Amino acid sequence: MSDDTVELSLLADRARLAATMLGSVTTDAKNAALLSLADALTTASTAILDANHVDLDAARSNGMRGSLLDRLTLTPLRVSGMAGGLRAVATLPDPVGEVIEAWTRPNGLNIRRVRVPLGVVAVIYEARPNVTSDVAGLCLKSGNAAILRGSAAALHTNTVVTTVLRAALACAGVPEDAVQLVTDTGHAAARALMKLRGRVDLLIPRGGASLVDDIIENATVPYVIDGDGNCHVYVDGAANLDKAARIVLNAKLSNPSVCNAAEKLLVHEAIAQRFLPGVAADLMAAGVALRGDQRACELVVGMTAASPADWDTEYLDLIMGVRVVSDVEEAIDHIRAHGSGHTEAIITEDRLTADRFVGACPSAVVMVNASTRFTDGAEFGFGAEIGNSTQRLHARGPMGLRELTTYRIEVRGDGQVRE
Amino acid sequence: MSDDTVELSLLADRARLAATMLGSVTTDAKNAALLSLADALTTASTAILDANHVDLDAARSNGMRGSLLDRLTLTPLRVSGMAGGLRAVATLPDPVGEVIEAWTRPNGLNIRRVRVPLGVVAVIYEARPNVTSDVAGLCLKSGNAAILRGSAAALHTNTVVTTVLRAALACAGVPEDAVQLVTDTGHAAARALMKLRGRVDLLIPRGGASLVDDIIENATVPYVIDGDGNCHVYVDGAANLDKAARIVLNAKLSNPSVCNAAEKLLVHEAIAQRFLPGVAADLMAAGVALRGDQRACELVVGMTAASPADWDTEYLDLIMGVRVVSDVEEAIDHIRAHGSGHTEAIITEDRLTADRFVGACPSAVVMVNASTRFTDGAEFGFGAEIGNSTQRLHARGPMGLRELTTYRIEVRGDGQVRE
Repeated sequence: MSDDTVELSLLADRARLAATMLGSVTTDAKNAALLSLADALTTASTAILDANHVDLDAARSNGMRGSLLDRLTLTPLRVSGMAGGLRAVATLPDPVGEVIEAWTRPNGLNIRRVRVPLGVVAVIYEARPNVTSDVAGLCLKSGNAAILRGSAAALHTNTVVTTVLRAALACAGVPEDAVQLVTDTGHAAARALMKLRGRVDLLIPRGGASLVDDIIENATVPYVIDGDGNCHVYVDGAANLDKAARIVLNAKLSNPSVCNAAEKLLVHEAIAQRFLPGVAADLMAAGVALRGDQRACELVVGMTAASPADWDTEYLDLIMGVRVVSDVEEAIDHIRAHGSGHTEAIITEDRLTADRFVGACPSAVVMVNASTRFTDGAEFGFGAEIGNSTQRLHARGPMGLRELTTYRIEVRGDGQVRE
Repeated sequence: MSDDTVELSLLADRARLAATMLGSVTTDAKNAALLSLADALTTASTAILDANHVDLDAARSNGMRGSLLDRLTLTPLRVSGMAGGLRAVATLPDPVGEVIEAWTRPNGLNIRRVRVPLGVVAVIYEARPNVTSDVAGLCLKSGNAAILRGSAAALHTNTVVTTVLRAALACAGVPEDAVQLVTDTGHAAARALMKLRGRVDLLIPRGGASLVDDIIENATVPYVIDGDGNCHVYVDGAANLDKAARIVLNAKLSNPSVCNAAEKLLVHEAIAQRFLPGVAADLMAAGVALRGDQRACELVVGMTAASPADWDTEYLDLIMGVRVVSDVEEAIDHIRAHGSGHTEAIITEDRLTADRFVGACPSAVVMVNASTRFTDGAEFGFGAEIGNSTQRLHARGPMGLRELTTYRIEVRGDGQVRE
């Protein structure tokens, strides 16, 4: 073992110990701790902003700009938002201890599934420092110890934030090792973290395709993939076209850089001529570059021809692929072939067509007459989210507190033995 | 790609297509198909037994004997048991389509979590041919396409069984590719199966440590580990010693070769002198070799000293480790250090001690005053099981039909967009 691996291994040991202790912290104590954490962030706002300036200066020197630089940037308002996020988590129901199901067998055995923490949760993420406090809060409330591995660009900020959070935890009587930051931001440390089998109970990668590929190829710990959102909106022949236009514009424009933004528009041929030119004009007026199949291009002046790669691409930008389809089945086939399993939407007033679309889409979330942008923990009422699963195992879609738990099966008897 | 990989890849494509079609097969049609499968096995009993003789002859020539040979052996009664298993699955509730949860948001969005199949489920297993029909039946009922990869030793048997099942599926109007056997029993084929990312939705290894290690190191597909059962029975100071003896003997002796058999006995020092000599005599009379710590050895004539490795070993045999502990906390610490996360039991009449033990054991299943042997899908009322999870993600303990599903989030609105 290298020194780095030894250090990570010790960190994981401390996380396990903290997780074991967290299991018996009461809901009231966890909520009180969350409020203390929020207060501590507010009190330390200046120190956090100072550290963030150091990160921002270095990032600018390294040529970072645009939305990446914006994501790295903290302001007094954003620090206050981080504190607010922790306070919000304190108001959410505690998932731990929930009796999911209980039944009695003919032999008198009483069986219960009881919700328990996963244990040690590790998150690898990019340069948004608010993720540091969000993850810490969600893990604390769900009884898990958090191992945080942010990006090199945010290291000063994350170090101060976690130092503040840990000190507040200690004061609140909660093990400070419930929140730990991996300060080695090199690739080898991330790789070592992926291989802490038996010590990390869940790894969530919040990053791009190369991080996800690295985890799929190399991780030995259990993980949930927070993957791409190549989200589709299908406007059916039986759509209310006003709703359809409103939803398409919202799904594409309200925040084009996030995973629940619509990337593709599929339009039923029966309404394409009436619907597409108008909505395309609105999208282009808002700066969206449209890339269409042949039939779409024939209907819209200024639309360029899509390449085969377009259909599989999550742009996260003001670009949208457009295709005219013969019916809902062709839309479903397209999504089956090119979707990333995140979110799809159908706009239709026909109940049977909607049900067919919902039943046939292989995605985590399927919307009927609503914007894809609603795939979000807060919008679903989860209060917050630690990520959005695009895999089928364990959890799908927005992951809140409950998705950070597992269950124990408790069997109570009176001396029963098996025949 | 090698020819083998191409063949496996085509098989996976057919499985995906079958899975997509299975999604819309009704419960009645699935149940009718299950009964047809059962009838087909009964009708083909002679052909299946003939194939099994070929496998058994080869196995004997290769030196296979004892419990392995027994597991490979089919008899008319066992074939009839396989058919009975399929009929039993037909009587179980269909998990697909179950509305797990439904709620309405303030903006009027109606959100539902609906249970759906995982998709394509692959199982790698050892020489028990009944697993072939069990897995096929559970996957069919839960709407999943099954990829079966049995051992070389059972190839003739499995080939005939799957041929019979596939023909019966086709007659019942269900895609025959819902059940496919990987006939290449080489290691390379298993390795290729583990790497069918995006095409296999769940891989369940039912095999020994080397298979599990291979999967942890090399799989890129999602998997659930069906791991070791180093199960403990802790007899507390407040135990009813009659119940305790009955449970210890049942947990160790009723079937020593299975994962839910007790492997370790922890005894509270306060009752050790009264309890241990008697139960040890009964165990030894039944042929169990006892390996104890120093305090246990002092109380029992004929007990040998345990080595450090004993505490981590799943014997699956007439061997049991015995340790005297000072209190429930020492028992918990021992289990935390050496348990495999499968099943632990406490025998006590003290409710608080029982609750402490249940809350602190990191295992999937914790029994109070009942035998560890009850950790079993049938005993829990699941009707059948496809495996027993010792991991924390997705499912824990016995995995029945529900554990072969995931959920889709369906959101129905009336034109809602995000602010």
